[in-house]
Amino acid sequence: MSDNLDAYRVSKEPYYRPVADEVELYEAAYSVRMPMMLKGPTGCGKTRFVEHMAWKLKKPLITVACNEDMTASDLVGRFLLDANGTRWQDGPLATAARHGAICYLDEVVEARQDTTVVIHPLTDNRRVLPLEKKGELLRAHPDFQIVISYNPGYQSLMKDLKQSTKQRFGALDFNYPEHAVEAEIVAHETGVDIEVANKLVSIAERARNLKGHGLDEGISTRMLIYAGSLIATGVAAQAACRVTLVRPITDDPDMRDALDSAVATFF
Amino acid sequence: MSDNLDAYRVSKEPYYRPVADEVELYEAAYSVRMPMMLKGPTGCGKTRFVEHMAWKLKKPLITVACNEDMTASDLVGRFLLDANGTRWQDGPLATAARHGAICYLDEVVEARQDTTVVIHPLTDNRRVLPLEKKGELLRAHPDFQIVISYNPGYQSLMKDLKQSTKQRFGALDFNYPEHAVEAEIVAHETGVDIEVANKLVSIAERARNLKGHGLDEGISTRMLIYAGSLIATGVAAQAACRVTLVRPITDDPDMRDALDSAVATFF
Amino acid sequence: MSDNLDAYRVSKEPYYRPVADEVELYEAAYSVRMPMMLKGPTGCGKTRFVEHMAWKLKKPLITVACNEDMTASDLVGRFLLDANGTRWQDGPLATAARHGAICYLDEVVEARQDTTVVIHPLTDNRRVLPLEKKGELLRAHPDFQIVISYNPGYQSLMKDLKQSTKQRFGALDFNYPEHAVEAEIVAHETGVDIEVANKLVSIAERARNLKGHGLDEGISTRMLIYAGSLIATGVAAQAACRVTLVRPITDDPDMRDALDSAVATFF
Amino acid sequence: MSDNLDAYRVSKEPYYRPVADEVELYEAAYSVRMPMMLKGPTGCGKTRFVEHMAWKLKKPLITVACNEDMTASDLVGRFLLDANGTRWQDGPLATAARHGAICYLDEVVEARQDTTVVIHPLTDNRRVLPLEKKGELLRAHPDFQIVISYNPGYQSLMKDLKQSTKQRFGALDFNYPEHAVEAEIVAHETGVDIEVANKLVSIAERARNLKGHGLDEGISTRMLIYAGSLIATGVAAQAACRVTLVRPITDDPDMRDALDSAVATFF
Amino acid sequence: MSDNLDAYRVSKEPYYRPVADEVELYEAAYSVRMPMMLKGPTGCGKTRFVEHMAWKLKKPLITVACNEDMTASDLVGRFLLDANGTRWQDGPLATAARHGAICYLDEVVEARQDTTVVIHPLTDNRRVLPLEKKGELLRAHPDFQIVISYNPGYQSLMKDLKQSTKQRFGALDFNYPEHAVEAEIVAHETGVDIEVANKLVSIAERARNLKGHGLDEGISTRMLIYAGSLIATGVAAQAACRVTLVRPITDDPDMRDALDSAVATFF
Amino acid sequence: MSDNLDAYRVSKEPYYRPVADEVELYEAAYSVRMPMMLKGPTGCGKTRFVEHMAWKLKKPLITVACNEDMTASDLVGRFLLDANGTRWQDGPLATAARHGAICYLDEVVEARQDTTVVIHPLTDNRRVLPLEKKGELLRAHPDFQIVISYNPGYQSLMKDLKQSTKQRFGALDFNYPEHAVEAEIVAHETGVDIEVANKLVSIAERARNLKGHGLDEGISTRMLIYAGSLIATGVAAQAACRVTLVRPITDDPDMRDALDSAVATFF
Repeated sequence: MSDNLDAYRVSKEPYYRPVADEVELYEAAYSVRMPMMLKGPTGCGKTRFVEHMAWKLKKPLITVACNEDMTASDLVGRFLLDANGTRWQDGPLATAARHGAICYLDEVVEARQDTTVVIHPLTDNRRVLPLEKKGELLRAHPDFQIVISYNPGYQSLMKDLKQSTKQRFGALDFNYPEHAVEAEIVAHETGVDIEVANKLVSIAERARNLKGHGLDEGISTRMLIYAGSLIATGVAAQAACRVTLVRPITDDPDMRDALDSAVATFF
Repeated sequence: MSDNLDAYRVSKEPYYRPVADEVELYEAAYSVRMPMMLKGPTGCGKTRFVEHMAWKLKKPLITVACNEDMTASDLVGRFLLDANGTRWQDGPLATAARHGAICYLDEVVEARQDTTVVIHPLTDNRRVLPLEKKGELLRAHPDFQIVISYNPGYQSLMKDLKQSTKQRFGALDFNYPEHAVEAEIVAHETGVDIEVANKLVSIAERARNLKGHGLDEGISTRMLIYAGSLIATGVAAQAACRVTLVRPITDDPDMRDALDSAVATFF
Repeated sequence: MSDNLDAYRVSKEPYYRPVADEVELYEAAYSVRMPMMLKGPTGCGKTRFVEHMAWKLKKPLITVACNEDMTASDLVGRFLLDANGTRWQDGPLATAARHGAICYLDEVVEARQDTTVVIHPLTDNRRVLPLEKKGELLRAHPDFQIVISYNPGYQSLMKDLKQSTKQRFGALDFNYPEHAVEAEIVAHETGVDIEVANKLVSIAERARNLKGHGLDEGISTRMLIYAGSLIATGVAAQAACRVTLVRPITDDPDMRDALDSAVATFF
Repeated sequence: MSDNLDAYRVSKEPYYRPVADEVELYEAAYSVRMPMMLKGPTGCGKTRFVEHMAWKLKKPLITVACNEDMTASDLVGRFLLDANGTRWQDGPLATAARHGAICYLDEVVEARQDTTVVIHPLTDNRRVLPLEKKGELLRAHPDFQIVISYNPGYQSLMKDLKQSTKQRFGALDFNYPEHAVEAEIVAHETGVDIEVANKLVSIAERARNLKGHGLDEGISTRMLIYAGSLIATGVAAQAACRVTLVRPITDDPDMRDALDSAVATFF
Repeated sequence: MSDNLDAYRVSKEPYYRPVADEVELYEAAYSVRMPMMLKGPTGCGKTRFVEHMAWKLKKPLITVACNEDMTASDLVGRFLLDANGTRWQDGPLATAARHGAICYLDEVVEARQDTTVVIHPLTDNRRVLPLEKKGELLRAHPDFQIVISYNPGYQSLMKDLKQSTKQRFGALDFNYPEHAVEAEIVAHETGVDIEVANKLVSIAERARNLKGHGLDEGISTRMLIYAGSLIATGVAAQAACRVTLVRPITDDPDMRDALDSAVATFF
Repeated sequence: MSDNLDAYRVSKEPYYRPVADEVELYEAAYSVRMPMMLKGPTGCGKTRFVEHMAWKLKKPLITVACNEDMTASDLVGRFLLDANGTRWQDGPLATAARHGAICYLDEVVEARQDTTVVIHPLTDNRRVLPLEKKGELLRAHPDFQIVISYNPGYQSLMKDLKQSTKQRFGALDFNYPEHAVEAEIVAHETGVDIEVANKLVSIAERARNLKGHGLDEGISTRMLIYAGSLIATGVAAQAACRVTLVRPITDDPDMRDALDSAVATFF
């Protein structure tokens, strides 16, 4: 990756509405460069939070969407073929470590369990990354920090972080915000008025009670913002909710009826 | 892929007969660049719909038939070897994001579950695609939109989209059109008269009732068009139906008898 | 593959003895370029039929023996390394589509289920093949047609075509020919007299009744031609039948006795 | 592979003692270039037989020891990198087909089931081998024949030839020779006198009765030749039998006792 | 890897508080270059111990974090492409063997069981490493020693070292230190006073009793150091313990309550 | 690999104490170049024996530690990229066959079952190795012999040699030596006096009785040499036994107690 991390700087303040002491705790953790784990369901604002903190701390942020096919080389780097033979190219983790960015591994549990082992030497007091293929022992920049996200409702026996990985991180819990806060967020992000936002949050709250009773996940804040943004373009509220809150998450007719009538209750 | 997306422009209006408010909802979704998911059984017109919308919105359309062996690199791009070393080549997703096309991932559920993770950063407010191998953080063109198709009768425990993927899309349901509309489509596409088209639709309706009772899928609109096109060349209706409606979808003798006698009822 | 398809033209009429209206139906299907699926047991003449039709329609025929290790690139093409860097080479499917051949995918069910997805865009009204690695959207030549073969007794839960693939094809059933026709074929192909050919067909008919009762497949027409050709070189009929009809298909002593005594009944 | 097949010619007559009409049947099969399958237990002389026939027919013989990791490219050929880019190199099957050798695929059932599909077009009347990567349709040399070996006691549900492969071959059964013939072979190959050879064959006969009762395979002719060759160097017969007949095939103490006492009975 | 091992020298004495005779035993083992295995739970100080010994023995230390995807080539080395063709690059194991470092394979049980076979020739009296791809038989430098770590609570039936590997190592047991020692370590590493450190150790002791009763692993010394370091920055003790001791290792509400009340008992 | 096998010559006589007629039997087997299989538990001296024989017969010895990831190319050879294109490099098996070394495949059962098939043509009377990728039929040097090792207590249903492989080898059994012989070996190799060596062997004998009753393998001769060598450096006998005989092979507390008290009985 490029030496110039300007593209990874967060130039505009990302809107983030704190729900507890998470901002202060993260600042303390960053001050000792403690590796951090953000826990919580999908779409509740973990990614937004880390963007906000990167903006606040004025550090570049390199985000990696983890997946099963990701190899250690995808994180660390590899040799590329060049006109003059091979040329080393740092991967996102090495770039962040070398130049002092916050490296955010999103949904780290999706990566092959043992690929995560490559981050271990960066998470203890050595703060090094062995680039074995290059023969370099990269010492992390003083500004470097590693952050991972993790959805606890998600992991299965096959996919969980190893204890020896978990113990290397401090952890912050995230969840959907309280009613008033969430409505404020939806209104702020979409431009709908607070009354519509309140109704959308109420629908979401009903759906979240169905989690585990036919729904794998509740309706997230992100989905409410989708609904609000369609409504803001002039789509009828019921149609907007159908397209953004109901149809995407279930194909079960009974569950659709239940959600549709929750929508009808409020709009 | 080439910078020139002219080959991907839909020059002639694709015939599409709306069944409800799907055209308006899609236009509203596109106006806020909301990622969209088209749900419905095989052969009911999802691909035709997205071609129609691309034509209507005057945007190039890049279609990717997803499959299990597709890697993230197939979507994002890779380095190719050149006389002067390596040269980066955008994949279809990167091409669409860079130059402002609609990118349509057909049967996305066939792709490895975690390959789909690469589309996440394009589906939230960041609208970026990290080209990690190239070290570029590609910001999507303002015209770019991502659309996926999804057959709900299809997914198994092994193959389903993750909740964190589903929640990133608005969704539109598709199904076989009503009798009169479907007959109109068959007649329009094949040149058979409306009476023959009506009969073909009636046969399909009988077969669709057998779905789940010995048939995995009903007879689709696409198959009716196949039958009509053979009839239009002069093949006898019963033979045409046998070749296009019955033989392709079942080898079970009883089921074949049932379908053959449905054909005999109408022709 | 080479641009010159002369090697793929069928210069001499392949002997084919029609059993019903399959030649006419195929001609009608070809006239509208409908993708076709040839269904039937191994060795009953599907490959011979498609060669005959290619000869009759005066189109080059590119045959691909599908297998589990076949990748999409094997069908579509790949970049090869050259003195001047990389050079694109069309695969057999792209060659057929570009230059207007009939592309015959033999035993398509052997291919990985999702590899077959690459043929989808060639089987609907778009008739295109996206060469994603090359960045080309190949539009099929007007003469191009795709044909697949499929053995219905063969597929298992693990290996079957997807419904969304099946629905893209018209289908023709094949089976072993009737006694007189099959004897005529055996005599024609091997030079044995019709009396010997009749006996061979009678043996095959007995064996075919054992299918599912200890034999996985019956004795095919192809095997009878093998037996006849050995007899024609002067080998004793019983020895020829032992080598070509019995020993290849079973190692079970009882089944071998049953088949050997069927041979002894006629010779 | 090299164009020059001289290294593959069998210059000295390999000793082979026919047991029935197998030599004549093979000659008739070769005269019509029928693909042949040699069936029988390990070490009973299948490889020796095909070497003998290649010598008798004065054709070069290319032997391929099949294995699970063998790819189609290992048989067909591949592009190699050269100073001037890539250069095609025929694999053993293509070499044999191009220059007219007998190609012997030893233990073909070990190859991945679908790798064997690549030999199909060479086994029917087309006698072609599509070199898809090279874009060449190789027509087999008139002298080319394909021969495979197959151990029927071996195949499992997971590893068996497909019916559509089996039906493409004539088959010859092989087994351990009769007592007198086998003793003659052992004496001829090792130089021990006929009395010792007779004793070794008697030991083998006892062991073969244990097949399926604690032994996976009996003692093969090859093993008797090993025993004889150690005896011929002056090793005591019991020690020689222990090293070559007993210790290699079983670690079960009871079975070792049974075999050791069979040895002690004769020596 | 580079010939220059200076980057791998441990320049500053790593803090290590011995608990028994492990330092002396290791020195004796090193004096005969006996391969050593460090056994114990995650985060109890195995890595720190080997760093301390490398510092004490004044030998460079090359650490490899083992993982499932690690190949023998990752340890041994590989050819890299260069302007002048290929160039051999030693892997970390070959570098250590060639130049006389201590090679520490961390969490060796994560490596594929048979990858560990490559270390065998370095662990017996031959002390060689065959670089098969390079055609070199590398004889180990007199200073070279191999050390592995191993978490006995970790291995499953699928993942355990082979007996033939285990028998090649001397072994030292590690565990969490006694209360007073552990408190001393926490105070020394974080700067909190001994009273706070004592409380943190007491919390850990309670949690360690829950191992196997709802917790997969106890709270490690490393985690206590994390807690202490947050407290040292001014974070309230309960919040610091929540972030570093409780949230990372469990999502079970009852277990969280149990741990939280253990925290509340002491702070 | 290099043409020069000097690095593979065994220059100093490796200490080996024969236990029966294995040296003479091996010499006879080598005189007819019979492939040999050395059977026995881990650490009982199989590798030492083959080194001793290579020294005695004055032949170079090429040892390959087999593993699951070893491919046929790792044994046979491969093309490497060079300034002038590709260059063939013999693998260890081809090197041994070409230049007349003894090739020792250690723990051959670890290799993928079918990789072992590549050695077949070298083990029968043809004594050839087809280098299929190079197009060369390599005839083995007259001095070449192949030797494999095999631990009978080890193989599982998944990992065993095929009968058709086993039958190609003569076999020699190995086991731990008798008390006096083993004590003599331990004293000779470590320098401890014979009394200490006797005690160590007595401890091992007790442990070997536990094999199958809680221990997977007994204490090997190699481990006794480890214990002796620590004692020789001045470590207390009990501590030395703990580190080298007990801790490496079991983590079960009861088993550790049993072994520790066996140690205490003698020291």
